[in-house]
Amino acid sequence: MQEQPSLARRAATEALGSMMLAATVIGSGIMAERLAGGNTAVALLANTAATVAVLAALIALLGPISGAHFNPVVSVMELLRRRLAAADSAVYVVVQAIGCGAGAVLAHAMFELPLLQTSTHVRTGSAQWLAEAVATFGLQFVVIGHRRSADAPWMVAAWSGAAYWFTASTSFANPAITVARCLTNTFAGIRPADVVGFVVAQCVGATISVIVARWLFSASRAPQRS
Amino acid sequence: MQEQPSLARRAATEALGSMMLAATVIGSGIMAERLAGGNTAVALLANTAATVAVLAALIALLGPISGAHFNPVVSVMELLRRRLAAADSAVYVVVQAIGCGAGAVLAHAMFELPLLQTSTHVRTGSAQWLAEAVATFGLQFVVIGHRRSADAPWMVAAWSGAAYWFTASTSFANPAITVARCLTNTFAGIRPADVVGFVVAQCVGATISVIVARWLFSASRAPQRS
Amino acid sequence: MQEQPSLARRAATEALGSMMLAATVIGSGIMAERLAGGNTAVALLANTAATVAVLAALIALLGPISGAHFNPVVSVMELLRRRLAAADSAVYVVVQAIGCGAGAVLAHAMFELPLLQTSTHVRTGSAQWLAEAVATFGLQFVVIGHRRSADAPWMVAAWSGAAYWFTASTSFANPAITVARCLTNTFAGIRPADVVGFVVAQCVGATISVIVARWLFSASRAPQRS
Amino acid sequence: MQEQPSLARRAATEALGSMMLAATVIGSGIMAERLAGGNTAVALLANTAATVAVLAALIALLGPISGAHFNPVVSVMELLRRRLAAADSAVYVVVQAIGCGAGAVLAHAMFELPLLQTSTHVRTGSAQWLAEAVATFGLQFVVIGHRRSADAPWMVAAWSGAAYWFTASTSFANPAITVARCLTNTFAGIRPADVVGFVVAQCVGATISVIVARWLFSASRAPQRS
Repeated sequence: MQEQPSLARRAATEALGSMMLAATVIGSGIMAERLAGGNTAVALLANTAATVAVLAALIALLGPISGAHFNPVVSVMELLRRRLAAADSAVYVVVQAIGCGAGAVLAHAMFELPLLQTSTHVRTGSAQWLAEAVATFGLQFVVIGHRRSADAPWMVAAWSGAAYWFTASTSFANPAITVARCLTNTFAGIRPADVVGFVVAQCVGATISVIVARWLFSASRAPQRS
Repeated sequence: MQEQPSLARRAATEALGSMMLAATVIGSGIMAERLAGGNTAVALLANTAATVAVLAALIALLGPISGAHFNPVVSVMELLRRRLAAADSAVYVVVQAIGCGAGAVLAHAMFELPLLQTSTHVRTGSAQWLAEAVATFGLQFVVIGHRRSADAPWMVAAWSGAAYWFTASTSFANPAITVARCLTNTFAGIRPADVVGFVVAQCVGATISVIVARWLFSASRAPQRS
Repeated sequence: MQEQPSLARRAATEALGSMMLAATVIGSGIMAERLAGGNTAVALLANTAATVAVLAALIALLGPISGAHFNPVVSVMELLRRRLAAADSAVYVVVQAIGCGAGAVLAHAMFELPLLQTSTHVRTGSAQWLAEAVATFGLQFVVIGHRRSADAPWMVAAWSGAAYWFTASTSFANPAITVARCLTNTFAGIRPADVVGFVVAQCVGATISVIVARWLFSASRAPQRS
Repeated sequence: MQEQPSLARRAATEALGSMMLAATVIGSGIMAERLAGGNTAVALLANTAATVAVLAALIALLGPISGAHFNPVVSVMELLRRRLAAADSAVYVVVQAIGCGAGAVLAHAMFELPLLQTSTHVRTGSAQWLAEAVATFGLQFVVIGHRRSADAPWMVAAWSGAAYWFTASTSFANPAITVARCLTNTFAGIRPADVVGFVVAQCVGATISVIVARWLFSASRAPQRS
């Protein structure tokens, strides 16, 4: 373990990574919907592939600097697991939200759409919330349970890609991305009124994950990350 | 080799992994069929991609605890190969079946379908049984023959993904998953009456695999796993 | 370098791997064509994905025993490069052809098709031959040039997958597979009369590859494989 | 660090790799468009998969000889970062352009199209330029920031694959490829008049990337490549 980079550099890293991640999620959704001619399965396949690829690349690239959370749930859980200071965690959450919002604007700019939008895509109900809890449970489980930091990129990406398809909500699993997706009235959008339900479900899933992981992984090793 | 985790923790791990695997197989099938608009090839591509991704992630994550079998055929073969105690093998098989069944229910809950279902999807005949034997032969072959445990996730996933397409049965290759799939009347289902034929074929394929592998791999090394 | 396995075991390994490879190439083509409803691009995507996945798994699994050639061009080039004895090379070529032929029969059995068939798929002309030469050039280049044997599975698979799409012939790049494909009147087939042209082109491409590779790779290292 | 190969061998390597890369980008686009029957999303998926696969294979194969730039922007940035001599950088740029042009001709030959063509595909406007700047920013960022040379193949490929979808321009991100694509009136083409705008945007993106990367990555390590 070498000396940790300054908080400013880590915060900039989280902001940049979050922006690129959100721009990919939203931008590839726009591109996919435009090209797919109504074949939503093909569009979601493309959206999944782009998200998975950029997620793996960004975690490998930026993980050594900031931990590559790009996700407030992960940063808060790292705080609860005493692996991130409270102030750092708060800064992470803020810059992740700002970064993801900027990513939405960037995607709109690249596709010549109005920069500021509000989604009208309804995503609500207990089934969707269950799906978000399951998706975030698994994501947090991978974050805690992976053994070698070199495996984190592909494992997080693989879980996220699978969850795009097997959860009914297409796996947002990230409050900052959820907020960014309410700022786009395109393929990846979610109505602002539905954001709270998703975020609560994500927090529930992640909390359960930490509890289960503490038991399953505890005896075999001291968990470590990055 | 460090000390082995308790049977309780290993059984919980097998149950959890089996549940997630079955939820992915069945859930992504539901999602894919809904979105694909009748294009079954696209639906199966998405179903394959989700299964492959979650399988790799789960094996890497849970393999160090329980071996990440998620499959009664593998657990029984490990018993025959004297790498798992009889009692442990029996517990594994039971929790795998329960876990996979729970995964089917979870998938239904996420997609707002009746929780308990019975499939009407006919999958029978000697060609399908041959396909299951081939698929399970190869899966067991990879389990026995891979040299580094770090390679198990991608090799098992790659074989399974290919077998989804080149075997006529779409490669169940797993009795617990087969049982779970008779509990869903969706894309991934199989009629209960057809389960026995599939399971027998899977056992035959795995047994042949162990025999062939004993000769092919024997001289070059002592096989080891996890 | 440990002691080499017996020729019998290596030959059995080559035969088994060749059979699985051909069964995958042909079987996934049948499945893909059946499900794709006329969308040939989707069918070829599935055919490519299955081939790539099984190729990577088989090379990682069987490479340590026989070298995992599954390809007469590779075995002959290994002879020319003085890395395989003449008798061994001859045995390899024969069992590869038999294995691939058996794979075609196996695929037909799984899909309830006549076991013995002859393709009517016309694949000929100088453009196709150029494509085969390019595809085999690159395949042989990867075989010679990769530096770590652990990278061979994904590098060979990645090249082959790309070549399925960027060469006009969909990259057979393998005389044994070419022969097997003339034994199936399905998606992957080739008319027997067209086999010779393909095989000659493959040999030309591989030979050029060996010459170019000798210069490009020579000074930086002694090539090695396993 | 062993002795560097001669400039002649490095230049030949860059030319060969650039030719194969361009042939894949253009050739797989032709194949995809022919087979996709108007479903552009499926065509772009295939085009992306082929490009990503060959890019990873070529970087792993040729990186140890020449660095596997295949991209004038990367070679110029390596000059600015004092990691490549001025003369070498100039030679690299020239052979990359020639190699990519030859790749376009090769693709046409394989698909029986006129060897010399000029694209009429309009790709212009500030949104497209922004997209190219973003795509090249990220590519250069990965080139500078990856920590282990063994990770470069998949990281560059993953970024490029994602950028095909989330940037509105489908991510050329490479002046030599851009020039080659104006020489083909097929799926991947770009009108000659639009080349300058793309190349300028690529240079801007790469330059910003170098500046940002100098700050973000500086303190944690001395950057190194290949």
